[in-house]
Amino acid sequence: MRLAELSRQSGVSTATIKYYLREGLLAPGRQVNATTAEYDEEHLRRLRLVRALIQVGKVPVATVKEVLGHVDDDSLGRTIRLGAALWALPQGPEPDEEDPATVTARAEVDRLLARLGWETSREMSTLSPVHRSLVAAVATLKRLGYPCDAEALAPYAELMRRVAQLDLDSMETHASEAEQVETAVSSAVLFEPVLRSLHRLAQEEESARRYGIE
Amino acid sequence: MRLAELSRQSGVSTATIKYYLREGLLAPGRQVNATTAEYDEEHLRRLRLVRALIQVGKVPVATVKEVLGHVDDDSLGRTIRLGAALWALPQGPEPDEEDPATVTARAEVDRLLARLGWETSREMSTLSPVHRSLVAAVATLKRLGYPCDAEALAPYAELMRRVAQLDLDSMETHASEAEQVETAVSSAVLFEPVLRSLHRLAQEEESARRYGIE
Repeated sequence: MRLAELSRQSGVSTATIKYYLREGLLAPGRQVNATTAEYDEEHLRRLRLVRALIQVGKVPVATVKEVLGHVDDDSLGRTIRLGAALWALPQGPEPDEEDPATVTARAEVDRLLARLGWETSREMSTLSPVHRSLVAAVATLKRLGYPCDAEALAPYAELMRRVAQLDLDSMETHASEAEQVETAVSSAVLFEPVLRSLHRLAQEEESARRYGIE
Repeated sequence: MRLAELSRQSGVSTATIKYYLREGLLAPGRQVNATTAEYDEEHLRRLRLVRALIQVGKVPVATVKEVLGHVDDDSLGRTIRLGAALWALPQGPEPDEEDPATVTARAEVDRLLARLGWETSREMSTLSPVHRSLVAAVATLKRLGYPCDAEALAPYAELMRRVAQLDLDSMETHASEAEQVETAVSSAVLFEPVLRSLHRLAQEEESARRYGIE
């Protein structure tokens, strides 16, 4: 398809597409003559992802570039490729290492992972920004005087494990590994608000069931 | 306890406590003489909640006041009291009613709730800001060309239902209904980042288990 058609199908203006091309967020089309290039389904897919990251996820252009670099790096194994792409996304706040609550929280997260038998997460704990975000979030609860221990967190983690299984099942319906990694990245940005809303709606439903509405 | 002790135990400065008192976010202490007031555990608990909402949740002071008004309103049934407090918190983006994707998304959410048998959520759908946030989040996925239908959402909703059961179980360990509603509000703000981090960590763990690390 031509640029105009790519714009029509993606809902992204031609000016914005040209900007993405200049920034290297989108691969150049196949040049058919001096002024015309031809784009395909792969361009359309990539454009959707870039738009999701920039417009919805508010991810800075430089970060999008880094994320796409990992998405496209087929020299990596799938877990590392996925991890690298997801770790490059903006993460939650870093733990405050000056705060004693961080030390307690890190010990609690260690106990949790041991209890769950999540060996990979334990091994990667010093590298993973996701692990650091969890420590920071637990530390915040502890600092404000709310209890948050491994025993209380474990059943939540088990349910999130099942959510992650659904995520990967749906990712695996895509044919190529490149598409699978793209799906994982867009879900991390776009599906999070769906999950949060479902959680809150479920709280309302469960509350009505337990306590009635009067 | 005196103001200085309340400050020490809560980690909130006396100046900030005085500000919260002036703004009516904290009930006045019991006056023991012209210059001294006595505070109790209830003040400490409320102070924790106010701090969680303002410092972590970045909730504006006027909104905190409104939320606390619902938390303290024991004329309401528990579901409504909980709902009113949670609905007063800042919500996700509103659906764009001009966008055809909103119409499709709303129909999909209706199908989902019917499928799940979540009757309360269906009945409250025109009132609930949580319902509107879900419609907006699904519409965003649809607009960007990602499939998101009732069949795909249902297993996620079922798992979130079990998460909500854990939430209410832990809420019910608190003695008074006032404390229970306070717990629900602080969890909505403080526990959300914990859940999101657990979800991402679970994705890493599950990915390593399925695809190995190499």
